[in-house]
Amino acid sequence: MQRYFVPSDQFDEKRVVITGEDARHIHKVMRMKPSDMIVCANNKGDAYLCKIDLCEDGKVLASICERLEGDPELPIRVTIAQGIPKADKFDTIVQKGTECGAAEFIPFQAERSVAIWKQDKKDKKRVRLEKISKEAAEQSHRLCIPEVRDPMNVSQLIAFGESFKNKMVAFEETAKAGAQAGFPTLLNKMKEGDHLLAVIGPEGGLTSLEAEQLQEHGFILCGLGPRILRTETAALYLLSAISYHFELLHCEVDE
Amino acid sequence: MQRYFVPSDQFDEKRVVITGEDARHIHKVMRMKPSDMIVCANNKGDAYLCKIDLCEDGKVLASICERLEGDPELPIRVTIAQGIPKADKFDTIVQKGTECGAAEFIPFQAERSVAIWKQDKKDKKRVRLEKISKEAAEQSHRLCIPEVRDPMNVSQLIAFGESFKNKMVAFEETAKAGAQAGFPTLLNKMKEGDHLLAVIGPEGGLTSLEAEQLQEHGFILCGLGPRILRTETAALYLLSAISYHFELLHCEVDE
Repeated sequence: MQRYFVPSDQFDEKRVVITGEDARHIHKVMRMKPSDMIVCANNKGDAYLCKIDLCEDGKVLASICERLEGDPELPIRVTIAQGIPKADKFDTIVQKGTECGAAEFIPFQAERSVAIWKQDKKDKKRVRLEKISKEAAEQSHRLCIPEVRDPMNVSQLIAFGESFKNKMVAFEETAKAGAQAGFPTLLNKMKEGDHLLAVIGPEGGLTSLEAEQLQEHGFILCGLGPRILRTETAALYLLSAISYHFELLHCEVDE
Repeated sequence: MQRYFVPSDQFDEKRVVITGEDARHIHKVMRMKPSDMIVCANNKGDAYLCKIDLCEDGKVLASICERLEGDPELPIRVTIAQGIPKADKFDTIVQKGTECGAAEFIPFQAERSVAIWKQDKKDKKRVRLEKISKEAAEQSHRLCIPEVRDPMNVSQLIAFGESFKNKMVAFEETAKAGAQAGFPTLLNKMKEGDHLLAVIGPEGGLTSLEAEQLQEHGFILCGLGPRILRTETAALYLLSAISYHFELLHCEVDE
């Protein structure tokens, strides 16, 4: 069933009002009619099964039938600080990272990032990435849209990380040295509701200095297996492993 | 360091001969010269550090300096039977799946596959996908290039699966029903050297009939977490989780 995020102030107890692009999508693209069903989520953890009452180009009214059960959000909140990659790879990372459960993305202006997001580019990119994360959140049946923050350099990232108890860096050199225990050790220490800040380098990887600076500030250097992953694959590996650890293995143990 | 797969009959005890496109790449693109170093892998599990002796457009000769240690191959051999997706998504799946350690890919002509690979398209596709898997294997430092098989329909896939002890289907409906224990339970039963055949549906998912037929022939229906993954994300989730289970968690337990 088609899903839409609707700002929470457009919900009342019985009804929801959908406006703008989503209303047009329902009317023009999906060609829906009164009494068709949709799911509306409020980006605050709730999703409702709704029945369309009125369907116009710029406005759709729907009655709330029931609140949907089930929580598809990752049990831990993961912030991905992604070294800014080339071309449109950030789009892919936000799309697939959202599907895999990321809570938040930070474009990290790393030493070896070839692209630099200047002010005008930054604002455009952010609008685009927020659209991608909303659509991916709808498609994957999430209850929350991951946030895309302003870009940070390494010092800003370290300052931002001050409030995090759990922080890590996916570091290729650690993987090359055969040390793979860091990541599962970290996950084994975490529990439901905890936050994790995970840093991933751009195409050329992090510099030794960046890795050192982050390590000095409490970030744990972790390998992600013995193969060299492209920058856009690392976030997906990390989020899939976290999902497997907390959402699947956990189930297995429970039975 | 630049890596190349070279057919094993082009190795002798002391030297390796590189021809064709790779020789041109070394000469023209990388502009390498005698005494520059490269890594040559024989696609049979060995990689060697080599020093270039002669560098021409169509031919490169290099001396073997040492065999490289370390095994970046997944401890279990995973065959991904991927429901043929739209457009060039199979390219992405082969590229990223190779990085994540897949041993083999089967294009699965599923009921809901929109694209149909006819004979001429099939051959072209295969050449293209084999090139992608070779390059991704070089980039990710693998020792073996995953094979790309001829497309199979569901009956052919079931017949192919006869020889597999471990086989599964990533099935959305199982995930929706909240049953997540199947996949880790299966992995917990497997040990190093075992083979796994994993089936993933195309964009529209598998039909109930396909899922039933596979289940009747010993395929276990498994959820991959509570979020709905796109078809091209499912293989990466699956391979990342397998890597985490066998290559990372295993390390942690060992310490």
